[in-house]
Amino acid sequence: MDHLLAAVDLGSNSFRLSIGRVVQQDGIAQIYAIDRLKESVRLAAGLGDDKIIDEEAIERAITVLKRFGERLSGFHPNRVRAVATNTFRVAKNVSEFLPRVEAALGFPVEVISGREEARLIFSGITNELPPSEHRRLMIDIGGGSTEVIIGKGFQPLHLSSLYMGCVSFTRKFFPDGVITASRMQQAELAARRELEAISRVYRRTGWQEAYGSSGTAKGLLAVLLEGGMSRKGITLEGLEKLKAKLIHDGQVVMGELPGLKHDRSLVLSGGLAIMIAAFKELNIKVMAPGEGALRVGVLYDLLGRDSAHDKRHETVRQFIKRYHVDVRQCERVKQVALSLFSQLELYDPTEKQELERTLGWAADLHEVGISITHAQYHKHSAYILEHADMPGFSNDDQELLALIVLGHQGKVSKLSLHDPTRGRWLTLLCLRLAVLLCRRREDQKSLPISLAANGKGIKMHVNKAWLDDHALSEYSLRAEQKEWRKAGIDLELIET
Amino acid sequence: MDHLLAAVDLGSNSFRLSIGRVVQQDGIAQIYAIDRLKESVRLAAGLGDDKIIDEEAIERAITVLKRFGERLSGFHPNRVRAVATNTFRVAKNVSEFLPRVEAALGFPVEVISGREEARLIFSGITNELPPSEHRRLMIDIGGGSTEVIIGKGFQPLHLSSLYMGCVSFTRKFFPDGVITASRMQQAELAARRELEAISRVYRRTGWQEAYGSSGTAKGLLAVLLEGGMSRKGITLEGLEKLKAKLIHDGQVVMGELPGLKHDRSLVLSGGLAIMIAAFKELNIKVMAPGEGALRVGVLYDLLGRDSAHDKRHETVRQFIKRYHVDVRQCERVKQVALSLFSQLELYDPTEKQELERTLGWAADLHEVGISITHAQYHKHSAYILEHADMPGFSNDDQELLALIVLGHQGKVSKLSLHDPTRGRWLTLLCLRLAVLLCRRREDQKSLPISLAANGKGIKMHVNKAWLDDHALSEYSLRAEQKEWRKAGIDLELIET
Repeated sequence: MDHLLAAVDLGSNSFRLSIGRVVQQDGIAQIYAIDRLKESVRLAAGLGDDKIIDEEAIERAITVLKRFGERLSGFHPNRVRAVATNTFRVAKNVSEFLPRVEAALGFPVEVISGREEARLIFSGITNELPPSEHRRLMIDIGGGSTEVIIGKGFQPLHLSSLYMGCVSFTRKFFPDGVITASRMQQAELAARRELEAISRVYRRTGWQEAYGSSGTAKGLLAVLLEGGMSRKGITLEGLEKLKAKLIHDGQVVMGELPGLKHDRSLVLSGGLAIMIAAFKELNIKVMAPGEGALRVGVLYDLLGRDSAHDKRHETVRQFIKRYHVDVRQCERVKQVALSLFSQLELYDPTEKQELERTLGWAADLHEVGISITHAQYHKHSAYILEHADMPGFSNDDQELLALIVLGHQGKVSKLSLHDPTRGRWLTLLCLRLAVLLCRRREDQKSLPISLAANGKGIKMHVNKAWLDDHALSEYSLRAEQKEWRKAGIDLELIET
Repeated sequence: MDHLLAAVDLGSNSFRLSIGRVVQQDGIAQIYAIDRLKESVRLAAGLGDDKIIDEEAIERAITVLKRFGERLSGFHPNRVRAVATNTFRVAKNVSEFLPRVEAALGFPVEVISGREEARLIFSGITNELPPSEHRRLMIDIGGGSTEVIIGKGFQPLHLSSLYMGCVSFTRKFFPDGVITASRMQQAELAARRELEAISRVYRRTGWQEAYGSSGTAKGLLAVLLEGGMSRKGITLEGLEKLKAKLIHDGQVVMGELPGLKHDRSLVLSGGLAIMIAAFKELNIKVMAPGEGALRVGVLYDLLGRDSAHDKRHETVRQFIKRYHVDVRQCERVKQVALSLFSQLELYDPTEKQELERTLGWAADLHEVGISITHAQYHKHSAYILEHADMPGFSNDDQELLALIVLGHQGKVSKLSLHDPTRGRWLTLLCLRLAVLLCRRREDQKSLPISLAANGKGIKMHVNKAWLDDHALSEYSLRAEQKEWRKAGIDLELIET
């Protein structure tokens, strides 16, 4: 099964599972879908005004994920990526139900940001389309968010994630299913208001092809075509005809709309209002269906992580440039930190690999906050790493990175709040010691420290002759020892 | 008294008042000191481990400030600037005692950041020195922080503020006044550790002249010269002799040290340890006394604010560049916001002038957070404006700017926590409406809204024909109205 990859997309309306086979062709890796599952969960409908997902919706999710989990049993964790989108982003009780969701699936679930979602959707659609020199507009109306993208080739030019979706809009503007002209008008205006902030920039960039990739787009297209409201693709004229019909009927009547599936009928009105708003604000002439979207984008990202094309490395490179990081200093720190880390034993090899990668990135990026100000820069670095768009990184990746960077200066004990695992404590220690040893921003001749961690305590062996020559470093190491003691961790300093 | 300016420096060790006379000479404005007061308050000594300043120290401060306030009675607020430094920066109960301090002085007190302090010290010393092509190193060992600067002409090249001072170090390492070799060694190492992070960069830049501007530098110089430990300026050799003497005597004995004043004797040991550390880490040969420092820097800044040289304008210009702000959009927003603001009546003309300036800056800078990510960018903008080094801005200036920017998107009611004044609410309203009207990023032909605020409510007159043509804007204005209602403020929309 080594040539198989799996992506799980926990959307606000549907959950999808895609299994792809990697095929090398002319030196280029391509992914062919070999299995797909799609289940309507309508998770966003369980999201109350208090932003709490109710138990009923959670159980719908868990039932579906158990099925997915069964299909994925036997997959290596490195070959599966599960991403969750808007409803997980906004739900206040996410930390309570996420462990249950992960247990049901049997794999970790990453909550990704809206822009990251847009980037993956773009990658997914692009990989399914024939190559083209045209600029392409892509709109993905999800259950809780709508992604709007312009890209050319494999390069996204604009990525936006707007806070509106077919589930949330249907729930808000048509709570009882009744459709009136005035309700439609309100929903459309609300959607245009969201689009207004980006429409000028998008129109100025322009595009030659427009794609709609979500269930909403496909559902609308089917209804328009089979109902004779459009002859090819989605058009504003067709959408207006459908709107007039829905207002006339006063609700969505399945029998009146050939091509409409039951699942889609429940969220049609909200999705229609958003689509009309998009056509009007962006002045779209005709929209074709786009395949693949998020789940295929996730598969290609997963493919890249095996090779030299891990998107995250490129992001780190860009950040080093954007924030004018002192590259030589960060290289020094990274070298020392990774060399200390390699001396440590971690029980779980997957965790060790992950933490080692995170430590390298943390060393690369620990000084980005100096761009704001030097005082307390570690806090600013952590803020940037937690909030910035970091293509390829999940929210969890960013949180861990921010945590390690936050802890690299000042009190160690502040991290206790986050209850880090043993592996994370050790990662932090390596970064702190590396920064301490490289404080003069000069190249190190040799590494005077070695680490050994067995059980609870950590032993730090330090060359005695070096220590005698470096009173200031000794002072700093003793201060470091005290910091760790305050956090309840015994860091023994042994002169050798 | 129109040609007089006054600066008050609320340091961690002493408080100083300087009154200067502005003299125009060859087209250049110079300030001549006409009155100076200095009082030892040792505020930092009242700072406990819990970072709370005790009542005794606060009362010492208030007694002194009442005296200063008497001298300043009759000064226009525009001609006085009072700045507070490290102890105010770190004290946790600052919000409790700051109003008492301001009441005693009779003028507002600005808490400034360490880098801003360094910038002002540099400006103060430079203005008192003859012009030179040399790079100059300046060290100002205060009661709670030490500023280290290299500059050339009027251009600072490096500005640092380190978290160590003569009061805090004496308190920490010599709590009972007993001086031993080992205590001196610990204090020196702690100071070197602070300096270590900057020493390489400073040494690489280099300098031809070194100045010490604080009471510590002047006190040490007097002791070294009068005690025959140095013949000219401060030298490491002289400092080491003094250290040996103090260790030998086991404490500071006034009679043993000609040239030492009583005030200075109380903080000599901590100041000496820091000075020795600076000489060693930076490899200083000889240090001359520097006059002026913070209080003179504040006077020159105050002078600039009257003219076209307000440092804050330059800072805003730099930020627009650094954060790649969409200049045309911000100009649009600024124009609309200021035009709305000019229609409003505020009771206090000084406040109106201040808020108008803040509104202009807020419009210029409200989008800086997009550099982190577009989602929730107003929060990132506010974070940057609150934490970044903004030369010329006090912490209060930055807080107000951040508050207005934070409020320009999303819920209005979140600002209620900060209990804004009526003027600040109105400022915020102008920015919000301007952003709303300019959302399409297109030039506005005319302003369809006018504002009137009398008593509690606000009346928003909107052109009816325009409203009929702009369904989306009407929708947004109604939504805005609801937002304000949630915050308990009645924003009446009147079609005219």
